[in-house]
Amino acid sequence: MNLQSLQAALRHTLPEGRILTDEPALSAFGQDWSAFAAPRPAAVALPQSVEELRSLVAFARRHRVGLVPSGGRTGLSGGAVAAAGEIVVSLRDLNRVLELDPVSRTLRVEAGAVTRAVQEAAAGAGLYYPVEFAASGSSQIGGNVATNAGGLQVIRYGPTRDWVAGLKVVTGCGEVLDLNRGLVKNASGYDLRHLFVGSEGTLGLIAEVTLRLTAPPGPRRALLLAVDELASLPELLGRFREALVLNAFEFFCDAALGAVVEARGLARPFAGAAPWYALVDFDLGAANAGDAAGLEGEAMAVALGIAGRAVAAGLAADAVVAQDDADTRRLWRLREGISEAIASRHPYKNDLSVTVSRLPGFLAELERVIRAGYPDLEVVWFGHLGDGNLHLNVLRPPGISAIAFRERCEAVNDAVFAVVDRFEGSVSAEHGVGLFKKKYLHHSRSAAEIAAMRGIKAVFDPDGILNPGKLIDPL
Amino acid sequence: MNLQSLQAALRHTLPEGRILTDEPALSAFGQDWSAFAAPRPAAVALPQSVEELRSLVAFARRHRVGLVPSGGRTGLSGGAVAAAGEIVVSLRDLNRVLELDPVSRTLRVEAGAVTRAVQEAAAGAGLYYPVEFAASGSSQIGGNVATNAGGLQVIRYGPTRDWVAGLKVVTGCGEVLDLNRGLVKNASGYDLRHLFVGSEGTLGLIAEVTLRLTAPPGPRRALLLAVDELASLPELLGRFREALVLNAFEFFCDAALGAVVEARGLARPFAGAAPWYALVDFDLGAANAGDAAGLEGEAMAVALGIAGRAVAAGLAADAVVAQDDADTRRLWRLREGISEAIASRHPYKNDLSVTVSRLPGFLAELERVIRAGYPDLEVVWFGHLGDGNLHLNVLRPPGISAIAFRERCEAVNDAVFAVVDRFEGSVSAEHGVGLFKKKYLHHSRSAAEIAAMRGIKAVFDPDGILNPGKLIDPL
Repeated sequence: MNLQSLQAALRHTLPEGRILTDEPALSAFGQDWSAFAAPRPAAVALPQSVEELRSLVAFARRHRVGLVPSGGRTGLSGGAVAAAGEIVVSLRDLNRVLELDPVSRTLRVEAGAVTRAVQEAAAGAGLYYPVEFAASGSSQIGGNVATNAGGLQVIRYGPTRDWVAGLKVVTGCGEVLDLNRGLVKNASGYDLRHLFVGSEGTLGLIAEVTLRLTAPPGPRRALLLAVDELASLPELLGRFREALVLNAFEFFCDAALGAVVEARGLARPFAGAAPWYALVDFDLGAANAGDAAGLEGEAMAVALGIAGRAVAAGLAADAVVAQDDADTRRLWRLREGISEAIASRHPYKNDLSVTVSRLPGFLAELERVIRAGYPDLEVVWFGHLGDGNLHLNVLRPPGISAIAFRERCEAVNDAVFAVVDRFEGSVSAEHGVGLFKKKYLHHSRSAAEIAAMRGIKAVFDPDGILNPGKLIDPL
Repeated sequence: MNLQSLQAALRHTLPEGRILTDEPALSAFGQDWSAFAAPRPAAVALPQSVEELRSLVAFARRHRVGLVPSGGRTGLSGGAVAAAGEIVVSLRDLNRVLELDPVSRTLRVEAGAVTRAVQEAAAGAGLYYPVEFAASGSSQIGGNVATNAGGLQVIRYGPTRDWVAGLKVVTGCGEVLDLNRGLVKNASGYDLRHLFVGSEGTLGLIAEVTLRLTAPPGPRRALLLAVDELASLPELLGRFREALVLNAFEFFCDAALGAVVEARGLARPFAGAAPWYALVDFDLGAANAGDAAGLEGEAMAVALGIAGRAVAAGLAADAVVAQDDADTRRLWRLREGISEAIASRHPYKNDLSVTVSRLPGFLAELERVIRAGYPDLEVVWFGHLGDGNLHLNVLRPPGISAIAFRERCEAVNDAVFAVVDRFEGSVSAEHGVGLFKKKYLHHSRSAAEIAAMRGIKAVFDPDGILNPGKLIDPL
């Protein structure tokens, strides 16, 4: 069947106006933030109901065409790229907030609901949805679930997985599974819900999500440390985490700070420069369970004490402490702006993780490997140190093609991933595998695990229509 | 192959002394607390390493004999029963504490480690493993993981699933999978770890578990409310949860209280009797995030205020508040002793759950159905109300056989599970499915879900050797 016939047949599948085939739509919806491959979908579908999702699955099976589920397309691993004539299934118009249950503290939304809208719906009921990242204004909850999105507050609240109380999905067989239905306790067989969290659209189309909510945290403050040695960062993390309830413990290098300051026209936080910075965000109201600090003043005094002692001991070169909410937001801007500030330099991204206790050795070895592998290239380090998660961005210099640059970076990956292997880490902490990390998956997962994943894929998507080519190859 | 030949062949598989075939061992290891069926295993194996687990899997595949993984055998659904000539694989001797990592806050143990030993190892490092239940002194961590054990503190800390950072399992194919390796963040494909949590030994033998630990909670206090109407309990839960950090919100009926008081020779907590009681356990040190109470005195004052207003409003008939730790432990004894106190009456157990917001309607309908279904039988209600989890125990009267009693109870199940269906609940909140709930699984899981579970079973255990007959039937 040629493209025109396929598009015509597809138009009969959904109500009028829900299939787009114009060039701007194909380009926009066929791509994510990774810009990994040139978009070339056959069409874009904008379903508005579970039934319409089922129709699309039936259509795809009949015509043996792939479906690429598509949320806010903020992914960085090419998981939402449609470059091979697939149908993009955008959840954009399946985005209602369905039910807020204040007693069970859950929120049921359609998959296309934007993260920010979810956070606002929770706040409207005096509750809190704690998964937060720079892309919260664009990313959709279905995409967050499909990639088990992490972000800025994992150290306190865990990733998206921990907040999914129920999922409604349409499998590659066209079955609608209503998984766990919001229950707190449910020991009735395999928890398929957790299989879909992080499955990157390869097992089913997520239609609805029931999210757990929690009580809002107390007021927060941030402080920023200037640090001379990478090796000091894990020690600083330990000291702050011991005594305070941390909302985040982030780090970045001076090149990251420079890029943000320049891109946004901000003032530098310190008179001088340091190679590394740590952003510590702590709860002013909550004491760390088991210790005595419980009042706003006390948590602040504890934080100031730790910072002061760290500077005195030479672990940190300098510290600035936010005095109020506005100060805190200003410090956060230095961290949150990094990805956007370096985007114009087309960074090659690695997203690595190890356990927190292995960070010192891991960072030291990695620094050596990076210096040797990229002596001539600018490398921007930042990430969620409190979760053992490091974002490594190599900036593309002018005058080198995208393809040549990627090949140059991938040539260093063997050495990078050898370090990840040695420290039993992950080749993808939170970005997912998609197209981009597929060939490196074996560093994090054994052959037996990958074989099991392929077997599971065959159970839910026997025809291989769901996000073909992403994550793993079918059996 | 006859039984003697099988036993002889099995003795060649493990080192001397690790295979038991004497009658007392077969009886003891072939049974769990459910006493669901007469034990009749072919042998008991006591492996001491992952390699020995693999040898047992290879043996089982070669001889087409079932393996029944066996922990502390405290299960209540027959999940560890070996009644059909299987080999019991007891993890009893694979029970070392392997590694406590204070920086990552994880504890790696072998599957046979007893829950209490895990809690003590955590406490030894100033940390806390929060999954706690009456059987903590007997249950093993591998069994907890295999059933996603819940228990007494789920309202604050969640079930076992939330504390599993890594799992080492041997599948029915004999493959060793080292899943997630303790990482906080790992977006590298399907999270098989969560598939094994709650799989009741049907997908693999759990060899090692890496558990997350946390900071110890602050000091606690309990209070006990006497309550006239079942319908008042959810409202009371809401009032306490709103203002305090609850460690537990438990409830029980007067028959439960009577049984414990009699069995243990305790004093009744109130001068009179009430039909229902609620045990509220709250953190004295931690304020509920977002509110002002932060000190010991304040949390206590808040709790007293809520209890006083509840009594004044007629929601509770009376209240006793623990004044110190000893008082708190005394109140807890009234709740923790229930299962043991009624065990001699051979209760028929249902273990139901719904979302917390659905409790009022669910309890009302269930009460009606129970009264109609068991007009002549003593029914003991208790459970973890804060999690929407109700344990319903029908006591066996003297003079009726076990089989006749079970049939009598099962005749009422249709009406009970019709209520569960209507409120979208679970037929097993935390006991698991095992043998006992298998025929009711379809009330909680759709035909498509059960088909998917069978497909997954075939991926990990193609020969159907792992805990045959439990949970689901193979493809």
